[in-house]
Amino acid sequence: METSVSSIAIGLDTVWVLLCAALVFFMEAGFAALEAGFIHSRNSLNIIMKVFMDCTVGIIGYFVLGFAIMYGVDKAGLIGFSGIGLSGDFSGIGLKIPLYAFWLFQAAFAIAMATIVSGAVAERMKFAPYIVFSFVATVIIYPIAGHWVWNSGGWLNQMGMLDFAGSAVVHSLGGWAALAAVLVLGPRNNRFLKDGSVTVMPGHNLPLAALGAFILWFGWFGFNPGSTLSGMDLNIAKIAVNTNLSAAAGGTMATLFTLAKFGKADPSMAINGVLGGLVAITASCAYVEPISSLLIGAVAGVFIVLAVPFFDSLRADDPVGAIAVHGVCGTFGTVAVGIFAEQGGLLYGGGFHLLGVQILGVAAISLWGFGSTYVVFSALKKTVGIRVTKEDEVLGLDLSEHGIASYNELEHSALGGYMQHLPLQRNPILVEKEDVTIA
Amino acid sequence: METSVSSIAIGLDTVWVLLCAALVFFMEAGFAALEAGFIHSRNSLNIIMKVFMDCTVGIIGYFVLGFAIMYGVDKAGLIGFSGIGLSGDFSGIGLKIPLYAFWLFQAAFAIAMATIVSGAVAERMKFAPYIVFSFVATVIIYPIAGHWVWNSGGWLNQMGMLDFAGSAVVHSLGGWAALAAVLVLGPRNNRFLKDGSVTVMPGHNLPLAALGAFILWFGWFGFNPGSTLSGMDLNIAKIAVNTNLSAAAGGTMATLFTLAKFGKADPSMAINGVLGGLVAITASCAYVEPISSLLIGAVAGVFIVLAVPFFDSLRADDPVGAIAVHGVCGTFGTVAVGIFAEQGGLLYGGGFHLLGVQILGVAAISLWGFGSTYVVFSALKKTVGIRVTKEDEVLGLDLSEHGIASYNELEHSALGGYMQHLPLQRNPILVEKEDVTIA
Amino acid sequence: METSVSSIAIGLDTVWVLLCAALVFFMEAGFAALEAGFIHSRNSLNIIMKVFMDCTVGIIGYFVLGFAIMYGVDKAGLIGFSGIGLSGDFSGIGLKIPLYAFWLFQAAFAIAMATIVSGAVAERMKFAPYIVFSFVATVIIYPIAGHWVWNSGGWLNQMGMLDFAGSAVVHSLGGWAALAAVLVLGPRNNRFLKDGSVTVMPGHNLPLAALGAFILWFGWFGFNPGSTLSGMDLNIAKIAVNTNLSAAAGGTMATLFTLAKFGKADPSMAINGVLGGLVAITASCAYVEPISSLLIGAVAGVFIVLAVPFFDSLRADDPVGAIAVHGVCGTFGTVAVGIFAEQGGLLYGGGFHLLGVQILGVAAISLWGFGSTYVVFSALKKTVGIRVTKEDEVLGLDLSEHGIASYNELEHSALGGYMQHLPLQRNPILVEKEDVTIA
Repeated sequence: METSVSSIAIGLDTVWVLLCAALVFFMEAGFAALEAGFIHSRNSLNIIMKVFMDCTVGIIGYFVLGFAIMYGVDKAGLIGFSGIGLSGDFSGIGLKIPLYAFWLFQAAFAIAMATIVSGAVAERMKFAPYIVFSFVATVIIYPIAGHWVWNSGGWLNQMGMLDFAGSAVVHSLGGWAALAAVLVLGPRNNRFLKDGSVTVMPGHNLPLAALGAFILWFGWFGFNPGSTLSGMDLNIAKIAVNTNLSAAAGGTMATLFTLAKFGKADPSMAINGVLGGLVAITASCAYVEPISSLLIGAVAGVFIVLAVPFFDSLRADDPVGAIAVHGVCGTFGTVAVGIFAEQGGLLYGGGFHLLGVQILGVAAISLWGFGSTYVVFSALKKTVGIRVTKEDEVLGLDLSEHGIASYNELEHSALGGYMQHLPLQRNPILVEKEDVTIA
Repeated sequence: METSVSSIAIGLDTVWVLLCAALVFFMEAGFAALEAGFIHSRNSLNIIMKVFMDCTVGIIGYFVLGFAIMYGVDKAGLIGFSGIGLSGDFSGIGLKIPLYAFWLFQAAFAIAMATIVSGAVAERMKFAPYIVFSFVATVIIYPIAGHWVWNSGGWLNQMGMLDFAGSAVVHSLGGWAALAAVLVLGPRNNRFLKDGSVTVMPGHNLPLAALGAFILWFGWFGFNPGSTLSGMDLNIAKIAVNTNLSAAAGGTMATLFTLAKFGKADPSMAINGVLGGLVAITASCAYVEPISSLLIGAVAGVFIVLAVPFFDSLRADDPVGAIAVHGVCGTFGTVAVGIFAEQGGLLYGGGFHLLGVQILGVAAISLWGFGSTYVVFSALKKTVGIRVTKEDEVLGLDLSEHGIASYNELEHSALGGYMQHLPLQRNPILVEKEDVTIA
Repeated sequence: METSVSSIAIGLDTVWVLLCAALVFFMEAGFAALEAGFIHSRNSLNIIMKVFMDCTVGIIGYFVLGFAIMYGVDKAGLIGFSGIGLSGDFSGIGLKIPLYAFWLFQAAFAIAMATIVSGAVAERMKFAPYIVFSFVATVIIYPIAGHWVWNSGGWLNQMGMLDFAGSAVVHSLGGWAALAAVLVLGPRNNRFLKDGSVTVMPGHNLPLAALGAFILWFGWFGFNPGSTLSGMDLNIAKIAVNTNLSAAAGGTMATLFTLAKFGKADPSMAINGVLGGLVAITASCAYVEPISSLLIGAVAGVFIVLAVPFFDSLRADDPVGAIAVHGVCGTFGTVAVGIFAEQGGLLYGGGFHLLGVQILGVAAISLWGFGSTYVVFSALKKTVGIRVTKEDEVLGLDLSEHGIASYNELEHSALGGYMQHLPLQRNPILVEKEDVTIA
């Protein structure tokens, strides 16, 4: 009889990881919808195309090189480099499942990190250099951070840093990379005015953004529980519950906080509150009690409401709140492991050791994300340029970079019948109209 | 060797239930899209925010208290109350999977029940009291109904009522609760005119509504088969097939019926026909033959086409058809068990006993849903108020309750360039325009 | 102890196939969103309704008759016919999982084939005859092609043709059927002008189309790996990786190719490049190395960019690019098995035998798809008619066929307040406006 107990166990784990990988991959649809909905319609197809590039160029980059750097044989705790194109010996990882399944799950994480940045640089970054960044992110930036924590030879792994599903490795890294990108790129036209005021630029399609948030939440059912890499690890149930409780607490707090503060419950804060709760629990979901998850999520929800205007005050223009959601909540979530972990957490008698390691670890990863992205963006800025012209920004990146708009009918408008039959090129009426508003 | 046969079996069941829980949770995205698409754009962000509250506040409510009432130690067949925050002894449930996995699956059901009501009260209910209702629904209304049927000590469970995945416990309960809510709340402005005519208020974005329906259908692959709580129960295959056949028959009948009656196939009826088929088969999917599923779905599809105008004639204003889909088809589906069940159904020689129990059970649950919601809505009406002002209803709940519109660009319109730069507050032009149309 | 090793293995395989079936079924949401987004808004609800019909009428057709023709006892290698309504003896299939699970997975494939055609005939085909076609496709056209390749008695199966998940059986068949349908139906009004020029008709909602593409990609995680019918077949991991690498390569090449050729990265080409990569790898995903997947996807991406204008030059009007994606890439992908298969492929020393079989097989299936659809469409054309009137095409099929528009509010426009309160019938202003633009 060929069906052995161990072969079924491997099959179960493989099924689990592949289905979770599908869920994590589907988060790219969530990012695309969220980011497109949160920005102007004239740039929304461009941002979706950038997310598409993460899923295409980024996937290839992580296959050819990124994985080798992340999970290849360790050099000095800092970097790996063996097994280009999955061709090497990765027995060091100690996998029970096929390498391909592990790679696919990891690849979905790698592109998520790149995509975090795409939202922050929306509405003014050129398309071609974004492709370069996406490739560099999945080939170098993310794999090195991942190596430090998740490769058994990585220096943070050796120190005992705990980041179960990537509050630091994916989210802090991506969030602080986004800050660097935004600082090099500069804010959108008219965003920060000379009199010190900030122009509110509400999303053009908030139902689409909310649908994106739901898809992201759905994907997190794979992101966190799937990180066990085993369906036989019954901890997957607690991980899923912790993940959802933190999301729920984050959304609740952001909603109630804005309701109390402004008299109105703010939808984009509620959405980002949920996402902040999800990001924050990602490091600790396997290590904490549900009650701690509620607390972690609630704090994340408050952080979101405070952090979004804070980055505005720094004139760091982040159209979708990626720095607050991923940078702030990812950092907080990584630190929270040191406080709430049932094994080693401060509140559970573990003292300050784990807490210190977590702080050091997330600081190192955040600095790496910020610094490396600052260098890459600066280099791109000085060579090919990273920013569209002011005219193109007014026109919209959909037309300037792709020659087509997101919504190619204006039949809802009085101008519809006419506009619909103009050639697909820079539309003089649109430009003129926009110029008036921007002047 | 640590991998035992039983540990793999538990792992498989846990993986199955968690992935099905993810699918059921994702139905909230479906509800949000469906409801938003079926109503005016000026209220669509508000309805999405209400669904968000079910997913946040509702999840917390069901965690802290609701589950204890539903699955805690039974008192007199009516209510449980032990194990707040999942802290108690739930060995009485007889679970093979981790309690956390079971809770997550159940939580997704609990919030679905609350969300059913959200659609019916769309376009005029205030946001804050909806949060209160969502909490009460997941803490008291749903858990008590669930206790009666799914807690082994519940009085309907003791009588032998069969409701496999909740045609009664989730859908009838939610549907008739929606009717009560609508009656207390009253219809939308201008919906029912003095001359007896009914103003048709078509959805602002039917592709979004259809996408929501597809997501709901997708989620039902978890809702019904997942209710086995075991991937080793091979009945999951027949359950999935029955579910899809009923949905297909419901959609087919609603489409052909409207095509024959009006000369045009009505999209919202087709959508609700599919959903009616899904709701109706939910009680019986594990107990009937595929041919019965086709019949149950077909009847549900016809019921939808008849029930929507019927509730209009009662002046019960239900913008999305929730009462027809969940109330009518949920009730019919529960009764259908007594007719079509291969074990005990009337057509299979089982006599009238099971049929009687099903009728009694669904009547009790429907009355509980209607009565408890009537009381809660009446109490809220007399205290904090449940209805927005007429001015806010004209303006739209997106702006009045959340200070932001769903679609914050009018660049498709001649007014676009101007409107886009107005502050995010009550927009005098919009208000004026709307006032004109409503006068 | 009732839990045996073999019962767990069956449970695992059943869970795997059902969840993959759910993913494949969800692709219908992807098709609906993709097709709706790629066409004019005035026809987008109609196309969604047609996809709905595949999911309802098509599912019933495949249940009652289609499956019996595909997997019933073979007659002469050409057709099966036993087991109407799954009632027969299907032990010949040699399934380890329940027949119901296998049927559901297959049913999701059957309706996908029908849906491929729906996109190509968008914007001018009447609704009622489409229902007839959908039924014929799932009852006869698809089952016969499937019988040839996937029924062990089928003549192409006997010859050793390899089509792992249906590049030929689903995609070539559907793509060339779409070409036949388009040729019988004729192009949209004003699409091909007398002076030889082609009117570009960009999609009305490209973010919706992109979301559809992401959903399709997500669904392919079930489409290809699920075709093992077993979660214990560890090849599922490589299959999933190959699938994603090909999609990534297709999207990358289509993007870079258009960027190089036109100076702008074309979004619809990028989207169709990804889909072309997915279609092309579908036949070979279980048989090739990852490096081959990258190559196959890259070629598919180039084919897309070349094929779309090619079919325009033939005056075959395909609004969504279905013929290029499914016909061209499906055919290429089937042939690619004969080149890249590790067992028997030309590049692996297998000689020309397998390649010849693949070419013969995909030619036969393509001809069957083209020919049978040509006959069905011609018969429908001569009897009930397949094309809406010119007036209805100008008005839009949403209003003419369903009496309601996709977007029933014009509050974004200067006309909004007025339009919103017109009765749901042919709207004179809209008609007039459209007439002006078309004249």
